[in-house]
Amino acid sequence: MSKSIPTREDNYSEWYNEIVKRADLAEHSPVRGCMVIKPYGFAIWEKMQKALDDMFKETGHQNAYFPLFVPKSFLELEEQHAEGFAKECAVVTHYRLKSNPDGKGLIVDENSRLEEPLVVRPTSEAVIWHSYKNWIQSWRDLPVLINQWSNVVRWEMRTRLFLRTSEFLWQEGHTAHETEAEALEETGKMLGVYAEFVEQWMAVPVLQGVKTASERFAGAIDTYCIEALMQDGKALQAGTSHFLGQNFARSFDVKFVNKENELDYPWATSWGVSTRLIGALIMAHSDDKGLVLPPKLAPIQVVIVPIFRTDEDLAKINEKVEPLLAELKAKGIPYKYDDDDKYKPGYKFAEYELKGVPVRMAIGLRDLENGTIELARRDELSKQTLPFDGIVGHIESLLAEIQQNLYDRALSFREANTFSVDTWDAFKARIEQGGFVLAHWDGTDETEEKIKQETKATIRLIPLNSIEMAGKCVYSGKESAKRVVFARAY
Amino acid sequence: MSKSIPTREDNYSEWYNEIVKRADLAEHSPVRGCMVIKPYGFAIWEKMQKALDDMFKETGHQNAYFPLFVPKSFLELEEQHAEGFAKECAVVTHYRLKSNPDGKGLIVDENSRLEEPLVVRPTSEAVIWHSYKNWIQSWRDLPVLINQWSNVVRWEMRTRLFLRTSEFLWQEGHTAHETEAEALEETGKMLGVYAEFVEQWMAVPVLQGVKTASERFAGAIDTYCIEALMQDGKALQAGTSHFLGQNFARSFDVKFVNKENELDYPWATSWGVSTRLIGALIMAHSDDKGLVLPPKLAPIQVVIVPIFRTDEDLAKINEKVEPLLAELKAKGIPYKYDDDDKYKPGYKFAEYELKGVPVRMAIGLRDLENGTIELARRDELSKQTLPFDGIVGHIESLLAEIQQNLYDRALSFREANTFSVDTWDAFKARIEQGGFVLAHWDGTDETEEKIKQETKATIRLIPLNSIEMAGKCVYSGKESAKRVVFARAY
Repeated sequence: MSKSIPTREDNYSEWYNEIVKRADLAEHSPVRGCMVIKPYGFAIWEKMQKALDDMFKETGHQNAYFPLFVPKSFLELEEQHAEGFAKECAVVTHYRLKSNPDGKGLIVDENSRLEEPLVVRPTSEAVIWHSYKNWIQSWRDLPVLINQWSNVVRWEMRTRLFLRTSEFLWQEGHTAHETEAEALEETGKMLGVYAEFVEQWMAVPVLQGVKTASERFAGAIDTYCIEALMQDGKALQAGTSHFLGQNFARSFDVKFVNKENELDYPWATSWGVSTRLIGALIMAHSDDKGLVLPPKLAPIQVVIVPIFRTDEDLAKINEKVEPLLAELKAKGIPYKYDDDDKYKPGYKFAEYELKGVPVRMAIGLRDLENGTIELARRDELSKQTLPFDGIVGHIESLLAEIQQNLYDRALSFREANTFSVDTWDAFKARIEQGGFVLAHWDGTDETEEKIKQETKATIRLIPLNSIEMAGKCVYSGKESAKRVVFARAY
Repeated sequence: MSKSIPTREDNYSEWYNEIVKRADLAEHSPVRGCMVIKPYGFAIWEKMQKALDDMFKETGHQNAYFPLFVPKSFLELEEQHAEGFAKECAVVTHYRLKSNPDGKGLIVDENSRLEEPLVVRPTSEAVIWHSYKNWIQSWRDLPVLINQWSNVVRWEMRTRLFLRTSEFLWQEGHTAHETEAEALEETGKMLGVYAEFVEQWMAVPVLQGVKTASERFAGAIDTYCIEALMQDGKALQAGTSHFLGQNFARSFDVKFVNKENELDYPWATSWGVSTRLIGALIMAHSDDKGLVLPPKLAPIQVVIVPIFRTDEDLAKINEKVEPLLAELKAKGIPYKYDDDDKYKPGYKFAEYELKGVPVRMAIGLRDLENGTIELARRDELSKQTLPFDGIVGHIESLLAEIQQNLYDRALSFREANTFSVDTWDAFKARIEQGGFVLAHWDGTDETEEKIKQETKATIRLIPLNSIEMAGKCVYSGKESAKRVVFARAY
C-alpha cells in the first residue's frame, strides 16, 4: 500500500494491473502464460458461476464433464475448427518422466512417446461431438442440452491477467437439436442469458449482435456475441453463442432418425463465457482508489469496522453490534466484522476501498452515545452518519441502489461514447479517441481488413434488430444496408 | 434394459460396470484412460462438492485456482515427491500444431518445442508451494488455508470408471501453519471432515488411521486416511490427509519471520478426495437391481409416476398432485413428476430403480377415489399404499430413515466382515474371503511387502486411538504393539 495506484488517465494499463494486484485478485504464475486466481478473485468467480449455473439449469441444461485431452485426429475432423485452434495448442506427447541417468533430476522418458499426440482442450466441440455419436440415435434423444465448467488452454505469447492467459476457466455449453429453427432459438436464448447476466449481475450494459465472417468461431456458421465498453473506450467481448449448423454432426458422423423416420444430422450450438468476465468487471466500474464491485457479485457486501482503543471499548461495541450482525446473517447479506487489532481503522478503510466492498460502516464510542453509525458507499465514495436503529433495512435498499447506480453510470458512459460517423476522416479521428463507432460498411472482408490495418479497429458486431438504414461504406463508399459497430478491442 | 444385470455374487466387477452404465453415470471415452461423467453422475458429484465445499468454508478455508501445468523443474524440487509421480505424468512438450506439408491433417510443429517440458498436474503441491513463497513472509500471513477444485492427471494403463482413471476430478487442500502442532491439528481436522462427509452424507462408515511408510503420499511425513469396506469385501481408500512437515517449505525455500522475530519454515498439510468417492458410493449400497443412493446425495429424492390411459385421466391426476409438488418444492425436496407418455409405468419403475431414486410414488384413478398413493422405497424394495393427505410429512421422515438405514446396513456389513486373526494360516484363509482383517504386524517394510506378495493384502491403516495390546506379528512372530488393519483393496 506504499505507492499510490496510477490513475486511469495517466496509465490505464498499469492502473488495471495494480487493481488486480492490490485487490488481491490474481497474479502471474511462473508457468508461462498461466495465472493464479487468488481467494478474493476466485470468490468473485464463484459468485458468477453460481448465478450463471442457476440460469443454465433454469433453461433446462445439465452439467457434465468430458476429457481434458483431445486426440489430434479428433481435432482434425472439422477442418475449419482444426485450422482455427492448431496454432495455440499445448500438446502432450509423452506420459512418463524418468530419473536423469546423467545426473540429477528428471527427464522425459522417450519410451513413453504416445502413438497419437493429445491436445489439451482449447474448447471441447471435438471431444464432445465424438461422445454425442453414441448419445444420439433418435429424435427422442434430442435435444441434448449440456454444459461443462472447465479449464481450457490456448497458448498465448502475450498475456494479461484475466483478459488473456494461456489457461483460463470457463463454461462451455454444447447442444444438439432436431431442427435448424430449434438450434437457432437456443443460440439466441443463451445470448440472452449472457446479456441478462452481464447487465443484471455485473451491472455492465452490453450490445448484442452477430460477428462478421472473419471474427467467427472456427467451425461456426454464425457467432453471436455481447460486447461491453470499458472505461478506456475499448470494447470487450463478454460472451459468445455459436450457431454451428450441422458442421460438427457431419464431421463426427452423428446421425439420428427423425420423426419422419429418416436419417438426419442434428443441429448444434455452443456458447461460453470465461474468467475474462472478471477483467470486464474490473475495467467497467473501478476507479483510481481501487476495485468497485456491484453488490450482487461482491464476496463481502458490507464491512463493519469498530473504532476502539481498549478491549473494554471493543466489548461495548461488540455488544451493540451483535444483533446487527445476526440480522445481516439472517437476511443472507455477506458481511465482515473486522475487529482485528493488528491494523488501524484508516488502514482498514483503505484496504476495503481497494477491494471494492460496496458498503462500509464504522462505529465508535461516540456513535454508541448518539445511537448512530457511519456509513460509506464505495461507488460514490460518500459518507453519512445514520441512526443505528433500522440500519439493516437501509443497507438492503442501498445495496440495490448501488447495483442500479453502477449500471446506470456504465450505461451513461457507453451512451456518451457511442458515435455515428459518416466520413473516413471522422471515423479515424473518432476511433483514435475510443468508444463504439457506428458506421456503414460495404460487407466485404477486404474493407474490414483494411480498416483494421489502418485504425486497429475491428467490427465488434452487426447489431441485431436494428432498423435497416441504407448508406455508403465509410471506407469504400459502396452501398451498405445498415451500420455496424466498430471499436478497438481487448 | 434388455439383458439383466449380472448379480454381485456372479460377477462383482461386471455388476459394477453395468450399474455405472445403466444408471447413466459415466462412460469410457476414446481418449485413453479418461472418462466422460454423464449428467446424472455429475449431478451426484455436484451434491458432493456442495456439501464438502460448505464444510471446508465452515472450517475457515477459501478456494483458489493454480495452473494446470507444473514445470518439470518445480516437480524435481521435492525429491520424494518427484520420484512418486514421475512415472505417471502426462508431459506437454510443444505448443503448436501445423498443417501436414505431406498431406492432410495436422502434425506437431517441431519449432514449437518448449524449453522446459510441462507436466499436467498430478497434484499441486509443487506449483502451489512455489506461489506460497510470495504469499508467506511473516507469522501474520499464517495460517494459509486454501482449497482447489480441479482436474488432475495420473497416467494409468488399466482403468475403471470412477475408481481409477488417468484424469479425474478432485479437491486438494493446501495449508501452511506457524507450528508443527497447528499443522498436525489441521491434518486431523480435515480427516475428521472427510469421515463426517462419508458417514453422514454418503452413509458409508469408515475406519480412520495412519498409513504405513510404504503407502504414504510421496513427500509426506505422515498420511492419514479413511477406509471403507465395499460389498465384495475389498477396502477402498476414501480420502487422505497428509502431514507434510516442513518438506515442501524447505524444497521451495518458503520462510517466514515468526513471533520471536526469527526465520522459520512453515508447516504444511495437504488433503484430498476425488470422483473416486462416486465409485465407493456405488459399491457400498447398490444391489442387483441397480444403483441405491443415500437421499442426501440423490439428484432426485422422490419420483412421482402418474398411472393413466387418457389425457383426461392425466388431467385429473395432475390436479390432485399439483399441491403435493408445490409442497415438495417449498420444502426443497428434489423431485421429478414423470408424466411422459412415451414410456409405460413399468418401464419407468425399472428405470428409477436402476437410477437409485430413494422414494418412488405412483398414483392412478383408483388412488384418487380412495385418497391414497402408492409408495416404494428403493433401499428395501418395499411398497405400501398410504393416505394421500400428509404424504409429504411422511416422505420427509422416510428420507431421513432411508439415509440412516443405508448407514446402519453398511455398518452391520462391515462389522460382520471385520475379523481379528492371530495365526498366519487363519490370516491367509480370512483374506481370501474378504473383509477387514485386524492382525499384529512387526512394523517392518519387509514383512509388509511379503504379506502383500503372498496374499495381495495391504495394510490399509494403523488405527488411531486404538488400545495398545501387545502381541506377536502374524507373519514373523516378532513383537507387535497393536493390531493393524489389513485388506485387499481397490
